Amino acid sequence: MTTSTTTYTLTGSCPTRLGVLDLIIGTLYRNQCYAYEMHSFDDTDIGRFFFRVEFYHVGDGEFSEEELRLQFADRAEPFEMNWELSDTSTPEKVVILVSKFDHCLQDLLHRYSTGALNIEIPAIISNHPDLQRMADWYEIPYYRLPVTEDTKPQQEARMLEIIREVEADLVVLARYMQILSEDLCKQLHGKAINIHHSLLPGFKGAKPYHQAYEKGVKLVGATAHYVSEDLDEGPIIFQNVEHVDHTYTPERLVAKGRDTERLVLARAIKLHTEKRCFLNGNKTVVFPGH
Amino acid sequence: MTTSTTTYTLTGSCPTRLGVLDLIIGTLYRNQCYAYEMHSFDDTDIGRFFFRVEFYHVGDGEFSEEELRLQFADRAEPFEMNWELSDTSTPEKVVILVSKFDHCLQDLLHRYSTGALNIEIPAIISNHPDLQRMADWYEIPYYRLPVTEDTKPQQEARMLEIIREVEADLVVLARYMQILSEDLCKQLHGKAINIHHSLLPGFKGAKPYHQAYEKGVKLVGATAHYVSEDLDEGPIIFQNVEHVDHTYTPERLVAKGRDTERLVLARAIKLHTEKRCFLNGNKTVVFPGH
Amino acid sequence: MTTSTTTYTLTGSCPTRLGVLDLIIGTLYRNQCYAYEMHSFDDTDIGRFFFRVEFYHVGDGEFSEEELRLQFADRAEPFEMNWELSDTSTPEKVVILVSKFDHCLQDLLHRYSTGALNIEIPAIISNHPDLQRMADWYEIPYYRLPVTEDTKPQQEARMLEIIREVEADLVVLARYMQILSEDLCKQLHGKAINIHHSLLPGFKGAKPYHQAYEKGVKLVGATAHYVSEDLDEGPIIFQNVEHVDHTYTPERLVAKGRDTERLVLARAIKLHTEKRCFLNGNKTVVFPGH
Amino acid sequence: MTTSTTTYTLTGSCPTRLGVLDLIIGTLYRNQCYAYEMHSFDDTDIGRFFFRVEFYHVGDGEFSEEELRLQFADRAEPFEMNWELSDTSTPEKVVILVSKFDHCLQDLLHRYSTGALNIEIPAIISNHPDLQRMADWYEIPYYRLPVTEDTKPQQEARMLEIIREVEADLVVLARYMQILSEDLCKQLHGKAINIHHSLLPGFKGAKPYHQAYEKGVKLVGATAHYVSEDLDEGPIIFQNVEHVDHTYTPERLVAKGRDTERLVLARAIKLHTEKRCFLNGNKTVVFPGH
Repeated sequence: MTTSTTTYTLTGSCPTRLGVLDLIIGTLYRNQCYAYEMHSFDDTDIGRFFFRVEFYHVGDGEFSEEELRLQFADRAEPFEMNWELSDTSTPEKVVILVSKFDHCLQDLLHRYSTGALNIEIPAIISNHPDLQRMADWYEIPYYRLPVTEDTKPQQEARMLEIIREVEADLVVLARYMQILSEDLCKQLHGKAINIHHSLLPGFKGAKPYHQAYEKGVKLVGATAHYVSEDLDEGPIIFQNVEHVDHTYTPERLVAKGRDTERLVLARAIKLHTEKRCFLNGNKTVVFPGH
Repeated sequence: MTTSTTTYTLTGSCPTRLGVLDLIIGTLYRNQCYAYEMHSFDDTDIGRFFFRVEFYHVGDGEFSEEELRLQFADRAEPFEMNWELSDTSTPEKVVILVSKFDHCLQDLLHRYSTGALNIEIPAIISNHPDLQRMADWYEIPYYRLPVTEDTKPQQEARMLEIIREVEADLVVLARYMQILSEDLCKQLHGKAINIHHSLLPGFKGAKPYHQAYEKGVKLVGATAHYVSEDLDEGPIIFQNVEHVDHTYTPERLVAKGRDTERLVLARAIKLHTEKRCFLNGNKTVVFPGH
Repeated sequence: MTTSTTTYTLTGSCPTRLGVLDLIIGTLYRNQCYAYEMHSFDDTDIGRFFFRVEFYHVGDGEFSEEELRLQFADRAEPFEMNWELSDTSTPEKVVILVSKFDHCLQDLLHRYSTGALNIEIPAIISNHPDLQRMADWYEIPYYRLPVTEDTKPQQEARMLEIIREVEADLVVLARYMQILSEDLCKQLHGKAINIHHSLLPGFKGAKPYHQAYEKGVKLVGATAHYVSEDLDEGPIIFQNVEHVDHTYTPERLVAKGRDTERLVLARAIKLHTEKRCFLNGNKTVVFPGH
Repeated sequence: MTTSTTTYTLTGSCPTRLGVLDLIIGTLYRNQCYAYEMHSFDDTDIGRFFFRVEFYHVGDGEFSEEELRLQFADRAEPFEMNWELSDTSTPEKVVILVSKFDHCLQDLLHRYSTGALNIEIPAIISNHPDLQRMADWYEIPYYRLPVTEDTKPQQEARMLEIIREVEADLVVLARYMQILSEDLCKQLHGKAINIHHSLLPGFKGAKPYHQAYEKGVKLVGATAHYVSEDLDEGPIIFQNVEHVDHTYTPERLVAKGRDTERLVLARAIKLHTEKRCFLNGNKTVVFPGH
């Protein structure tokens, strides 16, 4: 086959209904698009269908992404489908929020610089000045928005303004230690990922590693999840753990946890930016990735 | 939707070609079949497309599996497709080969008895009498085929006869300590799974755990693979490892390995019998399972 | 060195104090005992020292275990030490409590039969008749003690009687589905191990896998712990998890959990019976094992 | 107890012999040193005893490290013991060798900067200029020693000179892509750690991830080991793996491998610099760490 080098990702979900897959595949086929990788899932509890398909155009004819969009929109409408079509190579724009801890930021910036994460980072926002130098090294604009009880509303408004100005696709809380207001959480619904150290919902509240130490747990871990109004209870994207033993002080647990946190967060961002994650109520659907 | 309670699995592969997915999905749709779960993959190295789809019939009309088969065969033929359609609930018939070690057999029989593996076991074949009692407990016919250099050809012929008489879909070498002849391996191509202790291709040949001990490895594991003419080098289905340290004697490594072996073998059998595994030259395609 | 083939394990704990290790090692040395493996730990939070040492007698002279005990008792007394000396080869006597689920029992009995666990099982106690046949296969006495609200006190008394008659060193709740009374828990303090499916303290209460499903977790696991008055909150010995995804129904989570449960329970029992576990308030000290 | 805030680590090995532990513990005791954590192991194959003990001085009297050294040397001599005594807080001096890949270097420098690794890095040596900027950021001297077939002997001599000038305790090959000469390997015996991508001894030679891809493996990993004359076959310190599947191209395997490589290397360095690793012929003894 003569093939285009451009690959596309089409994702979406809709109520369970006969014909949905035929609509998707048939439309691609009629546009001479070869779907080389596909995953679908039907949540029988709530009757909702989720899909992700990667494809490229085949043959000598011209391919019009716009034309495909129009056709697809037309045919998907009766299925009440939410869908998204994107060029696989287009990087997502990710705004990162940080405070003072740098291990997650360092990890993300390194993956960004090596292309391991196909993202752009138009802004890093922090309530502290500490990580400015690291942002400078990677030549990324660093916005310092210190937060007090009084200034929180204005600073959140400013934050949202930046997020919109840079047209961010995703906001990442890379150990950002301020609690977002309920309103901001709503605005960022499905568009913000948080990393929670230790294993939720096991250890809520302050100092989770100290809680873990007091309980004498033999595992500590991290959870990456979408931000919801209940900050630490949003839909889970990815989790992992490490074995620990009685010789771990709270400080050693924290140190151990750092590796898990940054790996779990990086993986969640990769899955999201490759359009493998779907919100499904207070849960997620996550198709396999790398 | 009014739905049938019967679910089907359709799997197959064919050379990469535009329209293959449309053929699959379109045919299902025209037969009022709802494809609720689908996975596909295209091996761009060799230009081959693999797919697995689960579906059920929707609506009040009668569903004829036979009619679907006829239509599908007709349309798949120009695509040179190998395909298989099966009722998801139908258990595969699995013949198990064993020698003296009982940990893999015990594990498989327990999963069989609890329904964790949806299989039937029409025969256990062994070159030793030791595991007869365990077969009796589960009321499974036990064939003793002792093997010497002289009797090997006849005994392998007898083995193949049994496998055919019981119409086995799969043969499992659950720590069967005889090397199968090249001819038998060919006969069982893609239909036999072996478990190899320690991690191939790291440690070939005899006493792999002793080799692992001598090398001072910090991981030991197991590999489940399809049987090929080169017995321990067949296409890999699943692998796993466990951490070990300097206090592990060869005997302790063997003991540690047993848990990995039985879990890896059980998982490979589950993936195969749920039609999630595809041979792809000397490699496999394995779609996600549970 | 001319060495005895008999090896011994000496374990204990006492308040932190200079000279404790010299007392232990010095006493062994004066009795011509070679300590080939040793682990110690000091909990600085509470000021308590824990140790485990394996040794054998060296030289042509006679070795008297009794004499060593007397000397050691004498010298350890001022240190307020709890200690235990045992022949490493002596199997611990383990009483197993079960209900209807057989996966943990099956696993333990298999490890018992192959010697992977160096234990004796003088009794299996159940509130149901279902697992009698499995006990018979391994020729282990099976006591059926059905429990109703009314009969619970008598049946627990009878249970304790059996445990004492057979001189059990350890009681294992291998998915025993009755809640033990606070009094019985006290009687078994430090001498009973329970397996809790899913990950405590994450999911307390009934149907933990259904809770895990509702939360959309990406990990499920199991915790083995000493029984305490608060049944599911006792000191943790070992924990492990498995990755799961959105395709796991509660039933599939349960099935997945079974493998983790039986492996985690078996490992905890091995660690305990090899004298590697120490109670330390509501936590444990667990020295490395195999 | 009135305790010093300074803690010490005493490690060593000697031929198996009655009294060795009494010598160690007794000497510490007589110097009013409390041994709060101890691990020992006896390799019965070759008759060699290994130990590691952490202690601090107790009481009001003065503590002389020098005096302890003298006493210990005197008493250890007849046991033919190799031993080492160090202040736990003293950082080891680590020289890092790199080429162009920066993921391991980035990770090590970050751990160095946060104190996760208690090390000093007096020099980074590279055969390429690429990572100079990263070294500058952390204010670490960067020595560029480009290597050709002709200049290799001189450059290795220069390298050794730098290593000696800065009094390095350890040399780390953090994806240094030059093969060290046999002579240099000998000079660095037991003092140099290499990270090997993919899983040795499974895949030797060039392009191990391509080999892994061709074999269709379901696991890839990394091995950290001491450098020996046979570069990729030195005594193993730590290994780990990640699950992969058929969708991983060689490039994706490489990307996946990077995370494992840097974590495995960092852990090996932590274990070594905390004096938990011992060479034992072509194997290692590694006492538990964090």
